[in-house]
Amino acid sequence: MSYKKGKIYIVGLGPGKREYMVPEALEAIEKSEVIIGYKTYIKLVEDLLKNKSVISSGMRKEIDRCKKALEYAKKGNIVSLISSGDAGVYGMAGIMLEILLKEDSNIEAQVIPGVTAANAAAACLGAPLMHDYAVISLSDLLTDWEVIEKRIECAAKGDFIICLYNPKSKGRQKQIEIARKIMLKYKDKDTPVGIVRNAKREGEQIILTTLDKMLENKIDMLTVVVIGNSQTFIKNGKMVTPRGYKV
Amino acid sequence: MSYKKGKIYIVGLGPGKREYMVPEALEAIEKSEVIIGYKTYIKLVEDLLKNKSVISSGMRKEIDRCKKALEYAKKGNIVSLISSGDAGVYGMAGIMLEILLKEDSNIEAQVIPGVTAANAAAACLGAPLMHDYAVISLSDLLTDWEVIEKRIECAAKGDFIICLYNPKSKGRQKQIEIARKIMLKYKDKDTPVGIVRNAKREGEQIILTTLDKMLENKIDMLTVVVIGNSQTFIKNGKMVTPRGYKV
Repeated sequence: MSYKKGKIYIVGLGPGKREYMVPEALEAIEKSEVIIGYKTYIKLVEDLLKNKSVISSGMRKEIDRCKKALEYAKKGNIVSLISSGDAGVYGMAGIMLEILLKEDSNIEAQVIPGVTAANAAAACLGAPLMHDYAVISLSDLLTDWEVIEKRIECAAKGDFIICLYNPKSKGRQKQIEIARKIMLKYKDKDTPVGIVRNAKREGEQIILTTLDKMLENKIDMLTVVVIGNSQTFIKNGKMVTPRGYKV
Repeated sequence: MSYKKGKIYIVGLGPGKREYMVPEALEAIEKSEVIIGYKTYIKLVEDLLKNKSVISSGMRKEIDRCKKALEYAKKGNIVSLISSGDAGVYGMAGIMLEILLKEDSNIEAQVIPGVTAANAAAACLGAPLMHDYAVISLSDLLTDWEVIEKRIECAAKGDFIICLYNPKSKGRQKQIEIARKIMLKYKDKDTPVGIVRNAKREGEQIILTTLDKMLENKIDMLTVVVIGNSQTFIKNGKMVTPRGYKV
């Protein structure tokens, strides 16, 4: 790919380990003069940042980071705005584009996709996402809780495999309990559940359990929780949802 | 990663272009002695296959390919079984694991994740998957159509962004029409729709339209259709779903 002065690349790093970052994400960072990101993600690519301007900031500074990206792009820099996973899934891509579109900016932005947390977690578990699935964030910081509850209800009723992002934080403990209760209205208590912490990066932890017992395990913001559909099973340490082939 | 004799690597190639294949997928193919895959996907990595045993076959030969993989792994070979996108999303990962688990095989298998078609398509469109989304395949070859209809209904009712895989083929023309009708019960006719053909590979085509008009465009098996939620908008050629930040 050719990189353009005054353009913003919105880069998904994937789950964290370099082996799972797409070559174009690596190249965008290498070619960029300015790298902007959440401090934890900046650390993941620290070795690539020599001789670059690096702007890192903390949580809830997402809008500031996008505004910085725009400011530096306007000055003619090649800018990479980095996100973990896929930048287009609860990541920086939407916010950056919203800001550009709001001010009808002529600054170009390109999204470079990555391996999402859900897909990384699934690869750790076996093959739980082999059929129709729903991805839901339990964070009600930016979304009304009623909307999230309704989505959990609809996804469970539709017998989707469900991937929960942001399942629990220090300040949000009840959401995952409510989510489980709603799912139990439609899903059997023995429905397989996979809990993956730090999928495909340092400190990976994999737990296989059931909807009944899932809350007995550690769940936090570094965790993705995958709840099976009515066909999902666990055997020999693998969680698998059949696609329907007669094997 | 260290590669093991007699092990099966289930490899997602990503959307097609080498820039979007994760380094570990490339390495698995390079280290494997036997490569097995659908012929179209084998072509995508042809330059990597010198001095390897290559087994390619056509559509609907998925079970045969998995059995071949097992046969070669049992003989002590390093085997890569390849899938496009992410091998764990409607790909080869589930079938391969099902076969191993069914015969309680002691052959190991590892899933190497990739960029899914949905995420590749989203990156082409802008940032449509910034909020909760559902992934649904319209193929009723292996799934009862009533199940699929119910899922479309539930996903639409829950105001999910919806990604449709396998939306239409020569033999399946009606499914996308029915899907659209169901979605129109819950989603506005002006809901933005992105149609991406050959996302992030040769021949990429991007169409931005609405739920009302989506069927006026070419849709086939190489296409992913992304239908927005109630907040999704299109502006300056980008399809974006707001995450909820006040930009």
